Amino acid sequence: MPTARAVRITGAGGVDVLSLGEIEVRDPGPGEVLVRVAAAGLNRADILQRKGFYPAPKGVVADVPGLEYAGSVEAVGDGVTTWQVGQHVMAIAGGGAMASYIVAHERELIGVPDGYDLQRAAAIPEVFLTAYDALCVQAGMTMGDNVLLHSVGSGVGTAALQLALQLGARPLGSSRTQAKLDRCAELGLRDGILVEDATFAKKTRELTGGAGADIILDTVGAAYLAENLGAIARGGRMVVIGLLGGVKGTANLGALLAKRATIIGSVLRSRALEEKAVLAQLFTKQVMPLFAAGTLSPVIDDVMPMDQVAAAHTRMEANETFGKLVLAW
Amino acid sequence: MPTARAVRITGAGGVDVLSLGEIEVRDPGPGEVLVRVAAAGLNRADILQRKGFYPAPKGVVADVPGLEYAGSVEAVGDGVTTWQVGQHVMAIAGGGAMASYIVAHERELIGVPDGYDLQRAAAIPEVFLTAYDALCVQAGMTMGDNVLLHSVGSGVGTAALQLALQLGARPLGSSRTQAKLDRCAELGLRDGILVEDATFAKKTRELTGGAGADIILDTVGAAYLAENLGAIARGGRMVVIGLLGGVKGTANLGALLAKRATIIGSVLRSRALEEKAVLAQLFTKQVMPLFAAGTLSPVIDDVMPMDQVAAAHTRMEANETFGKLVLAW
Repeated sequence: MPTARAVRITGAGGVDVLSLGEIEVRDPGPGEVLVRVAAAGLNRADILQRKGFYPAPKGVVADVPGLEYAGSVEAVGDGVTTWQVGQHVMAIAGGGAMASYIVAHERELIGVPDGYDLQRAAAIPEVFLTAYDALCVQAGMTMGDNVLLHSVGSGVGTAALQLALQLGARPLGSSRTQAKLDRCAELGLRDGILVEDATFAKKTRELTGGAGADIILDTVGAAYLAENLGAIARGGRMVVIGLLGGVKGTANLGALLAKRATIIGSVLRSRALEEKAVLAQLFTKQVMPLFAAGTLSPVIDDVMPMDQVAAAHTRMEANETFGKLVLAW
Repeated sequence: MPTARAVRITGAGGVDVLSLGEIEVRDPGPGEVLVRVAAAGLNRADILQRKGFYPAPKGVVADVPGLEYAGSVEAVGDGVTTWQVGQHVMAIAGGGAMASYIVAHERELIGVPDGYDLQRAAAIPEVFLTAYDALCVQAGMTMGDNVLLHSVGSGVGTAALQLALQLGARPLGSSRTQAKLDRCAELGLRDGILVEDATFAKKTRELTGGAGADIILDTVGAAYLAENLGAIARGGRMVVIGLLGGVKGTANLGALLAKRATIIGSVLRSRALEEKAVLAQLFTKQVMPLFAAGTLSPVIDDVMPMDQVAAAHTRMEANETFGKLVLAW
């Protein structure tokens, strides 16, 4: 049974509840893989978990954060056919990714392209799987769709922006910070919407010739709900993946019916193994070739050493990062 | 240009704004069919339209109500290949169905089985197309689904109940009236939920072993929104097709995300021709054989003469009907 270094959450609160320690990692069972983690991406969910608002799902280590990682295969369990020792892999996890070793099922793992930097790879899974699942799998994004991406300068936002451009959709990106819109313009965003007073519906309709957004990727929740229903097009689909602007909001069901719109709630973390495996396989086939070709690329704000995890939390909470923070061993 | 008898809405208000009159009906154009209407079903939407709350969509006669009809082909326009004079057909309409003649596109029309009574047929299109579209096309109902049907004693409710039973799903039906639940039990409903104080989530979870409803067909809207999010299962889909309980409600997006649930707003009336045609063709193939075989059957409260339209409105508004009211010429 290997021992791993790991970030530990010793209570619920500020960054002082984070510390480095050691954990026991079990041997990989049948169909499982032991991965030596090179780096793990930081996510807002890690901050929520640190504060005590987002506990790990059942069956996941409760006091080690980390929802994504990249590394190399250290050992394989009985019957594993997909991977060999030494291969580079990445994945999302329900928790525990900020440890130097983690055990995963072989079907959850996504192969990292040959020669691809593992610290870069660690910035891919959470944001690109989230954006891909929400936009492509759930909302059926395709050519010609007007796609409104809230928090477009975030990790998920920049991933979604790239996916929309790849698929021939037309991204519209919102942010409360002009500097983030400017950075997104460099990534190809032509229609930035600076959100003031939490309004954006009118601007969205103007930019789409009155039609509104066929797809909305929402990370804000309650505070944007009414405006989202004003911004959405007839037959539009809104995928809510975050609630940074609150949980309970007033829904105008009249608009929902008149527009025949759909609201979809989505999270990755609590999904069952088979759902994560399906998503990993789809992503491997449809999206990974574009990383290998360099067409898609994670936007990385900084790579920091794992023992700087508290400082990384502080930077993310200051809302001044553009793209991902990665923590490396 | 034929002249038709028709129900007219002469203003917005009580049943006294309804009167019988005459209208001009245009000749069928290319691809169109002139139908001699035998009977038209009455819907709650007709009452809303009479009150001035639900005007006809663009391109539809504004002062003649009626959203469904059955009749016989009187004449066909150029290029019509599907129908011949004398054949029996039925359809939904954006309005104008309470006239003795109506023009429709040939692809919107659904064939009435040989020997099937046209007054019975007139009770089929609106409720069965609505229930079929919501449950089967949009929510993907199939075997084993727990399906919560609100207002199960209504026209749409009894149609949905029959479709759920046909498909091997398990219907749960709610009503505020025990007598309607008793009538539905005769149609095969085993899990009736008597709604008191607008609560039903706890009972739904109890009846489904804690899982909740995979699909909810909602006709109530705001007043049921919070309870619906409590009653829905992980991955569940709620189709909102009516707002009898109000338009604006508080949505708990936290529950929506945690359950990865979907809310879909749906109306038939304002759909474009091609959407109605697709639905009519799907319905013809998948559902009509079950009417021909007698396995599905519209639940009809009463057939009244068309000149009793005001009395029919009054009966529907009293909320004491079980199944459809049909108005016959």
